Amino acid sequence: VAEVTLVVSLLTDYGLSDGFVGALHSVIRRASPNVPIIDLTHDIAPQDVRAGSLALLRAAPYLAPGVVVAIVDPGVGTSRRGVAVRPTNGTGGDDAAAVTLVGPDNGLLVPALEALGGAAACVELEDRGYWLPAPGPTFAGRDIFAPAAARLVAGAALEDLGKTVGPGSLVSLPAPFLRRVDGGDLEVEVTWVDRFGNVELAARGEDWLAGTGTGRLGLARSRGTHADLLVLVPGRSSFSARVVRVFGDLAPGELGLLVDSYGYLALCRNGASAAELLGAGEGDRLSLRSPAPRR
Amino acid sequence: VAEVTLVVSLLTDYGLSDGFVGALHSVIRRASPNVPIIDLTHDIAPQDVRAGSLALLRAAPYLAPGVVVAIVDPGVGTSRRGVAVRPTNGTGGDDAAAVTLVGPDNGLLVPALEALGGAAACVELEDRGYWLPAPGPTFAGRDIFAPAAARLVAGAALEDLGKTVGPGSLVSLPAPFLRRVDGGDLEVEVTWVDRFGNVELAARGEDWLAGTGTGRLGLARSRGTHADLLVLVPGRSSFSARVVRVFGDLAPGELGLLVDSYGYLALCRNGASAAELLGAGEGDRLSLRSPAPRR
Amino acid sequence: VAEVTLVVSLLTDYGLSDGFVGALHSVIRRASPNVPIIDLTHDIAPQDVRAGSLALLRAAPYLAPGVVVAIVDPGVGTSRRGVAVRPTNGTGGDDAAAVTLVGPDNGLLVPALEALGGAAACVELEDRGYWLPAPGPTFAGRDIFAPAAARLVAGAALEDLGKTVGPGSLVSLPAPFLRRVDGGDLEVEVTWVDRFGNVELAARGEDWLAGTGTGRLGLARSRGTHADLLVLVPGRSSFSARVVRVFGDLAPGELGLLVDSYGYLALCRNGASAAELLGAGEGDRLSLRSPAPRR
Repeated sequence: VAEVTLVVSLLTDYGLSDGFVGALHSVIRRASPNVPIIDLTHDIAPQDVRAGSLALLRAAPYLAPGVVVAIVDPGVGTSRRGVAVRPTNGTGGDDAAAVTLVGPDNGLLVPALEALGGAAACVELEDRGYWLPAPGPTFAGRDIFAPAAARLVAGAALEDLGKTVGPGSLVSLPAPFLRRVDGGDLEVEVTWVDRFGNVELAARGEDWLAGTGTGRLGLARSRGTHADLLVLVPGRSSFSARVVRVFGDLAPGELGLLVDSYGYLALCRNGASAAELLGAGEGDRLSLRSPAPRR
Repeated sequence: VAEVTLVVSLLTDYGLSDGFVGALHSVIRRASPNVPIIDLTHDIAPQDVRAGSLALLRAAPYLAPGVVVAIVDPGVGTSRRGVAVRPTNGTGGDDAAAVTLVGPDNGLLVPALEALGGAAACVELEDRGYWLPAPGPTFAGRDIFAPAAARLVAGAALEDLGKTVGPGSLVSLPAPFLRRVDGGDLEVEVTWVDRFGNVELAARGEDWLAGTGTGRLGLARSRGTHADLLVLVPGRSSFSARVVRVFGDLAPGELGLLVDSYGYLALCRNGASAAELLGAGEGDRLSLRSPAPRR
Repeated sequence: VAEVTLVVSLLTDYGLSDGFVGALHSVIRRASPNVPIIDLTHDIAPQDVRAGSLALLRAAPYLAPGVVVAIVDPGVGTSRRGVAVRPTNGTGGDDAAAVTLVGPDNGLLVPALEALGGAAACVELEDRGYWLPAPGPTFAGRDIFAPAAARLVAGAALEDLGKTVGPGSLVSLPAPFLRRVDGGDLEVEVTWVDRFGNVELAARGEDWLAGTGTGRLGLARSRGTHADLLVLVPGRSSFSARVVRVFGDLAPGELGLLVDSYGYLALCRNGASAAELLGAGEGDRLSLRSPAPRR
């Protein structure tokens, strides 16, 4: 039997300035010095569970087999549970990554879990036998979640970490806003502004802008240089945009709409920030309107 | 005999933008491609030896066995020594991490060393045989400290790196300020403001706020919602605070005092920055006053 | 035959906030969980190919044997090619790191390649067999470059990745500006401002400030405290500076010129930012004038 190397992947709002991430790595490597560790990101906005859940969702299709520790945890030390969850598509199948998700039960894990087929098994991390003793209970990442991950990569069963709980009992957050309104506009929430100023929207590209034809949004990729749609930002101007495939299809500074590398609609510009032009950020709602809306 | 995998842990003020950290990793991996490397943090404020020494102190109880390279080094290339030090509690004992600390002799290593029982052995890194040749002497991390670490994880003895020097000769910095003043106030230095705006103070929680009872500060955790102490910020207002266990024990925005995950007193708020409220930063001195001070 | 462990080194403009780097690591570790990965830096200014090429050049002499993936790629998904290149001095010799460079053909790789003796072999990454399927073509790092690197560290030949192309066909960028003007001034471009405010110039120290004697710049390291040169910043003041060996040779705040750890001339201060004093940034041109210019 070929032995699979399990990887620990980390996603937190700890930042890289304070040594919190170094403490996670240290705790894991004291138990398993050679385990591969991936830092998915540690720069989720502080205590923004929603943003963390969406970043984890984007990472989900690419996760290396092993344990994923996700921590955005404003309720640390309170009655909110810590959990370890095994997704349905993470324990079998050919392409499925065999992953276990570890973190607080506050909605952070759920979108990724759903993308992996839902939760097949779940335990609450309440067996204090593997917790690290600590002067105060405010660093569950170091004292509970990292030790749990270390045990899992060392071969522990999910059930060794605590009592089984119903996957249906996991806390979940409302989905990002997405609505087709009268007149044909798509009203949609901004889910992510990346480093380059690209503005990702809560709408799958395959649903709304299918292939090279027209999707439910009534938009087709233009061959020319005329506007394909209007972007309406409440309380601000409207902006015309072209539907394109890559940034380089746009003139410098021009606004475009494309299907991004995660499969979502995204507003972008060539060599400039779309977020800055639009004055829009995560959680804002924009409207997309085709020039000749269909009803 | 079970072979122990030695880990290299790094703590610097190099930042992650310039490739300095990448150079450390590259030098280490050219010698030992598979050695596990932990980045404790690289975001110590530039040339802030004091802040670096306190970050290393916080990391000390969790260090993975191996070599810890710490670099905050304004005197690079001058007569300040480079050293490798083995702490008393780092070479034996059941739970002790067998670590060697490597870095400049400017006070950076000393608080962590003391937390690990003091220095048992120390050498000056003056054997140029393992130094990397370099066009200029301003990057000791790449040219001296990383090669020294690489030799240690490859099995070299401490004495292979240079001449033995007396541990008592190590440079040390003044301890953070902490004083009980007349009238019962605790006057104490801010040692750390973390990403979340928590304000750590230079006072061990076990000394000043023992268990659930009352410590030398005369404070007990309240069950109610009334103030347990006043926080006085020189030149600014005073702020009332409650003694709590975790952030979630506070109302949103309320100021609290707790024993943080490193064992120190820390001022915090629920879902907001205590540092911003107080207008206080690292190195500032605050006073804690109990509402009914004992004398 | 001793087996060499190949390392993957990464240099990008992805930043660490968005999960892009985590996706690269995940893709590589799904294929090869235990491969050592070095993050050279991910904080190249967004889409600044020039800055990326210079950072890679600085890293070149220290690269660990294996694959270097460099990505600053404003033209992602357009007709710009992706390439894998093996440098002349990267496949043999005693000290030569056996590296393969992978990235976009937009000039990013060329300065490092030239430092490694030029390109010995080059292929275009056009065999889609190893590309990851993706909803959109804007993340070549995850979908093309990382899979190519994974194949190389798993033992694939360069030619397995695509068709051979002439190394002479690689796109290159203009070299940083450097000119000796009438009157003896050296007019030179700022290539880098580091975290500490050191200002690196596009002039090799060995050419312009040889050893402890005088180079083509007519400058010698002073023993005293008088100015050795003037630094002229167009549209701003001129500043006097001393030629020194390390920061600590300067008085606090004093401006100096030294040969930096990469072999270039750099302006610096002791405990302060030279860039802030000079008001100069990357791409600016400064003039260095010796007090008694030779003609």
